[in-house]
Amino acid sequence: MVDPANTVGIPVNPTPLLKDELDIVIPTIRNLDFLEMWRPFLQPYHLIIVQDGDPTKKIHVPEGYDYELYNRNDINRILGPKASCISFKDSACRCFGYMVSKKKYIFTIDDDCFVAKDPSGKAVNALEQHIKNLLCPSTPLFFNTLYDPYRDGADFVRGYPFSLREGVSTAVSHGLWLNIPDYDAPTQLVKPKERNARYVDAVMTIPKGTLFPMCGMNLAFDRDLIGPAMYFGLMGDGQPIGRYDDMWAGWCIKVICDHLGLGVKTGLPYIYHSKASNPFVNLKKEYKGIFWQEDIIPFFQNVKLSKEATTVQQCYIELSKMVKEKLSPLDPYFDKLADAMVTWIEAWDELNPPAAAANGKA
Amino acid sequence: MVDPANTVGIPVNPTPLLKDELDIVIPTIRNLDFLEMWRPFLQPYHLIIVQDGDPTKKIHVPEGYDYELYNRNDINRILGPKASCISFKDSACRCFGYMVSKKKYIFTIDDDCFVAKDPSGKAVNALEQHIKNLLCPSTPLFFNTLYDPYRDGADFVRGYPFSLREGVSTAVSHGLWLNIPDYDAPTQLVKPKERNARYVDAVMTIPKGTLFPMCGMNLAFDRDLIGPAMYFGLMGDGQPIGRYDDMWAGWCIKVICDHLGLGVKTGLPYIYHSKASNPFVNLKKEYKGIFWQEDIIPFFQNVKLSKEATTVQQCYIELSKMVKEKLSPLDPYFDKLADAMVTWIEAWDELNPPAAAANGKA
Repeated sequence: MVDPANTVGIPVNPTPLLKDELDIVIPTIRNLDFLEMWRPFLQPYHLIIVQDGDPTKKIHVPEGYDYELYNRNDINRILGPKASCISFKDSACRCFGYMVSKKKYIFTIDDDCFVAKDPSGKAVNALEQHIKNLLCPSTPLFFNTLYDPYRDGADFVRGYPFSLREGVSTAVSHGLWLNIPDYDAPTQLVKPKERNARYVDAVMTIPKGTLFPMCGMNLAFDRDLIGPAMYFGLMGDGQPIGRYDDMWAGWCIKVICDHLGLGVKTGLPYIYHSKASNPFVNLKKEYKGIFWQEDIIPFFQNVKLSKEATTVQQCYIELSKMVKEKLSPLDPYFDKLADAMVTWIEAWDELNPPAAAANGKA
Repeated sequence: MVDPANTVGIPVNPTPLLKDELDIVIPTIRNLDFLEMWRPFLQPYHLIIVQDGDPTKKIHVPEGYDYELYNRNDINRILGPKASCISFKDSACRCFGYMVSKKKYIFTIDDDCFVAKDPSGKAVNALEQHIKNLLCPSTPLFFNTLYDPYRDGADFVRGYPFSLREGVSTAVSHGLWLNIPDYDAPTQLVKPKERNARYVDAVMTIPKGTLFPMCGMNLAFDRDLIGPAMYFGLMGDGQPIGRYDDMWAGWCIKVICDHLGLGVKTGLPYIYHSKASNPFVNLKKEYKGIFWQEDIIPFFQNVKLSKEATTVQQCYIELSKMVKEKLSPLDPYFDKLADAMVTWIEAWDELNPPAAAANGKA
């Protein structure tokens, strides 16, 4: 798009991509000063801020941003008894924002994430890259060795079946982090000074049948395609576990995307992650997850959804039954989690009545 | 390794990695002047040159290289009637070199591949990177979003199961190409000017259960772990197909690596691929493969090897039977190919008697 009045020929994009079809969801307990740095890229978009912790605290949002803000009182008021499925004192509460959004796309970002620079020193417009990832197909059925075949200057390589070159719709775009890598507490403790300085210039599809650790720090998805499965579970206050909210969602969305023939991408865009969380606090939150995931991963690797499950909701309810049956023996927590998965779907459908959801608007 | 006499502290590696444990296999029909450019990296290693086409032609090898050379007459003399499994007038003949080698590792490279430069302008020592890839484990059972977790400055990310962090042995290292990408004839015809200029600074494991298009241009493998499956099939003279030799080997090695719990990596190192082959000639060679692969890929995606198949040879013989049963209906060529797969294993075992192979030396 070239502005005809622009006589020097610099390309100008007068309307940001998907401006009216995307919400940015931010969970926070503090002032959102990090948005100052993001202004050139994010200010045109609508924000949904999910305030965690003390609801009487006033969150400052930089001027000029258009936003709605929900604190715990709002969540309780809107969902009533179903609010029990939304975590408290954990960034898992962000998924409430996915539920109240009426847009087709969601970008969620943590408030300690800043604008990264690419190797040429240029600021990375993370949201623009996520949108590109979501708008072009994925290739989960066969690996392309030159990475994203749809990218400018790339294609499918010799030997890639022609029947698979149309790809499938992309449901999720998982971005990465420069500076502080997303390590677990044991790795943080062992390598306190490790920083990620490697900018890998690639986007790739995670193959069908392969699970990955999905981080919620820098994540975008198509709400119409996969929204009801983006539940971040029960974490934080009153729960025996934390820091597995995004992992849980990642395992669930991956088996459902595989079942429904949808794609999940990872790689670009990078954000600059500024602050390592406290590894001792993290260890306390994580340690049960570290044990449990040794059973949870094989569970998800063996999930087979039925042919009758053709919507995300149906898949998710089926999955909740399997969680109850197969993971409850591990710990009563999973019984509670399986129930919360059902509550989440009920709440989702209440806020997003099926008829309205069918045409992507409420 | 630091030389104690090196008072300025510059690390010196006096003996090239695996110097006596690796052979470089080069198929060629012309003089090997391309080796001049590779001298700093490849001269310490032993070459196995497989001369294709007219055996009376004299191939010039740059001075200083240590090599053995086999032409068609040598292949016929050494293998007798079993020489029928080695392709003629096609670079598929390179697999004869894998068979006569007595080393643990093989690096194979095409004679139109030159030294690439990384983004900093430094010449890429492709062989050194392949060796690193082969000597460190693979992670086929779960995807690590920061790519190779064993690389300096990287690790497993949060949510990666601890029980899977030891990884598995790496059998294959698949390198990539700058400049001329490895496209099929239709893509070459449509995009004659496309060049690959994107240096993606990553090595990754191709997940279990996922097939990929393996290119033979810049490839290394552990002969002890996967050698007998690295058969490049029947191509070229007298065959209805060409340019699917490495693809065939790639599909076979991948299902066998998955079955035996071995890893396959792709990514770094890059070579600089200098010359696009003629797309019209390529189309003639490829067109049957373009049809056939629409059936071959689902075939390989559904291959289930038996628990009794615990060696590469056993797996390969089982696979040959499946090829005969399931792919022969597609074309009589696959009947012939299935027989050649058996001949290949017989010839391999003859040149590499099991007792000697067991301790990795002959």
